Amino acid sequence: MASIKDVANLAGVAVGTVSRVINNAGAVKPATRAKVKAAIEQLNYVPDEVARNFKMQKSKMIALLLPSIWHPFFSELAYYIEDELDREGYKLMLCNSGGKPEKELYYFDMLKQNKVAGVVGITYNDIENSVSTDIPMISIDRHFNKKITCVTSDNFEGGRIALRELVKAGVKKPAFLGNVPFVYSETMLRKEGFVHEAKILGVPYEVYEEPDPLRDEDKYYSTFLNRYQDIDGVFAITDMAAAKYIEKAKQAGIRVPEDVKVIGYDGIQDHPYFHPLLSTIRQPVEEMARTAVRLLLKKAEGETLDREVYQIPVTYRAGETT
Amino acid sequence: MASIKDVANLAGVAVGTVSRVINNAGAVKPATRAKVKAAIEQLNYVPDEVARNFKMQKSKMIALLLPSIWHPFFSELAYYIEDELDREGYKLMLCNSGGKPEKELYYFDMLKQNKVAGVVGITYNDIENSVSTDIPMISIDRHFNKKITCVTSDNFEGGRIALRELVKAGVKKPAFLGNVPFVYSETMLRKEGFVHEAKILGVPYEVYEEPDPLRDEDKYYSTFLNRYQDIDGVFAITDMAAAKYIEKAKQAGIRVPEDVKVIGYDGIQDHPYFHPLLSTIRQPVEEMARTAVRLLLKKAEGETLDREVYQIPVTYRAGETT
Repeated sequence: MASIKDVANLAGVAVGTVSRVINNAGAVKPATRAKVKAAIEQLNYVPDEVARNFKMQKSKMIALLLPSIWHPFFSELAYYIEDELDREGYKLMLCNSGGKPEKELYYFDMLKQNKVAGVVGITYNDIENSVSTDIPMISIDRHFNKKITCVTSDNFEGGRIALRELVKAGVKKPAFLGNVPFVYSETMLRKEGFVHEAKILGVPYEVYEEPDPLRDEDKYYSTFLNRYQDIDGVFAITDMAAAKYIEKAKQAGIRVPEDVKVIGYDGIQDHPYFHPLLSTIRQPVEEMARTAVRLLLKKAEGETLDREVYQIPVTYRAGETT
Repeated sequence: MASIKDVANLAGVAVGTVSRVINNAGAVKPATRAKVKAAIEQLNYVPDEVARNFKMQKSKMIALLLPSIWHPFFSELAYYIEDELDREGYKLMLCNSGGKPEKELYYFDMLKQNKVAGVVGITYNDIENSVSTDIPMISIDRHFNKKITCVTSDNFEGGRIALRELVKAGVKKPAFLGNVPFVYSETMLRKEGFVHEAKILGVPYEVYEEPDPLRDEDKYYSTFLNRYQDIDGVFAITDMAAAKYIEKAKQAGIRVPEDVKVIGYDGIQDHPYFHPLLSTIRQPVEEMARTAVRLLLKKAEGETLDREVYQIPVTYRAGETT
């Protein structure tokens, strides 16, 4: 296999010149560059990336830290993040944290060791003090108080749209079905937008929040169903919460959309083959993913970003539940 | 920050000894190892992985090459592959090929440059001659003719079970709904098991296959519906194909399961909130993923595997479509 010395010999230049051409670093005359490139091609020379990373002390690797790739919202997001990174010549390292803070911290440590170029992170845990500002990082959905830029969908506007669409569908008394997050997350704005719009329109509303609905799901939904028997509309904080509510409501003899109209948030159903097709606030997943990557690569190159939070507009997608 | 020399000085050993302890390579007396570990801890020494990889000429990185992470079967598989790799101290590089052969080849090239420790690959394209045998690789679903070990679900047995379950549900004339793959794939055994079992039981059956159902989906399903009007059971090659058939059948006035009973293959529905819940042959995704990783790491360590194809047993999961 050809070495960098072979390339230098054939091109009649120094090894350092070849290195500058390969790494796009330092000035090289166009004619010299052309000679080097021709030699690389002729010898079918493959630069050793591991050795290059060692010398340049950085890698073309971006880490994606998320709770679980095995969730339709995250897997769609990962799909577009990988696609955008690939366009820019970067690779994706996938880290499932399982939502466990200790696994997230373990990955941040690991990431430091590996000198990844940056991290796209989705975490809903309180790892605030442990997240190093040394690593270029973009957070999705979660706005840290440090200088970690956040990309989210426009959650507040999404909540407003959901309220308006419920009212448009004839709902007189809508309820918000949510949860109290452990730490501040942009997703809380969904409720705030919903409440804001209800107040503007003078619509009576209910808000139901529990700290950890997953701990006792049956109790979470049965409490909601018992407590708010007069509601005729639900805006659920996620599509999964909407789908679970609809199933529990059906068991309690409540028909959707006849008795209660339901709007979710996410847009996880990308095929029309499974029912109910949820009416939902669709996250602009592709644009969020590509924006996160573009901002991250800017940061990795030392640029300062002009905002702390980048909000991407959302749209309403009508389904079978309103 | 502490260097390897600081560790060696504190432990009173040579740098090479520290290196052998860190890399678990070469004999080191237990007492010496303990001294080195204590020094590492005391100094909070973090080995530089990039530098280590450079010296050892390999990385603790495994590449996962798949058509798209944005598909429930693949994202579940990726979830368990990452989890198993993490247990073994390896990281996962994610490569979406989009099913395009040129992107797959590009990744194989990239992988060679980066000296990944191995590849878990899922491809349905004919890249046979381009896949290097230098890289330890495990293929999922696709059995190459080279020495690339393949992990699959027991597709043949899955086909047999599907036929038997349809007959048990009262079906008199079942049809197989499939496609002709571009290259040989283990998934073809689903049809073969179905046909084999139908012959054993003396059940009349139909087989419908098209080279590329995705090119003109409407035509694919309408041809099937027109051609086989007397069938009362369908075994579809995947859950997605089953779900699409059910939707098209409904539009044609055929009720599932009243008129036609349907069984899919995969088990992509991990929540009971969306309907129809497909009756399906459930792929043992977790076991396939963990098996693939364990075999790959054995291969990466130079071990010879005793089989070419590892088949993992499947189970039938009754849903609402039989």
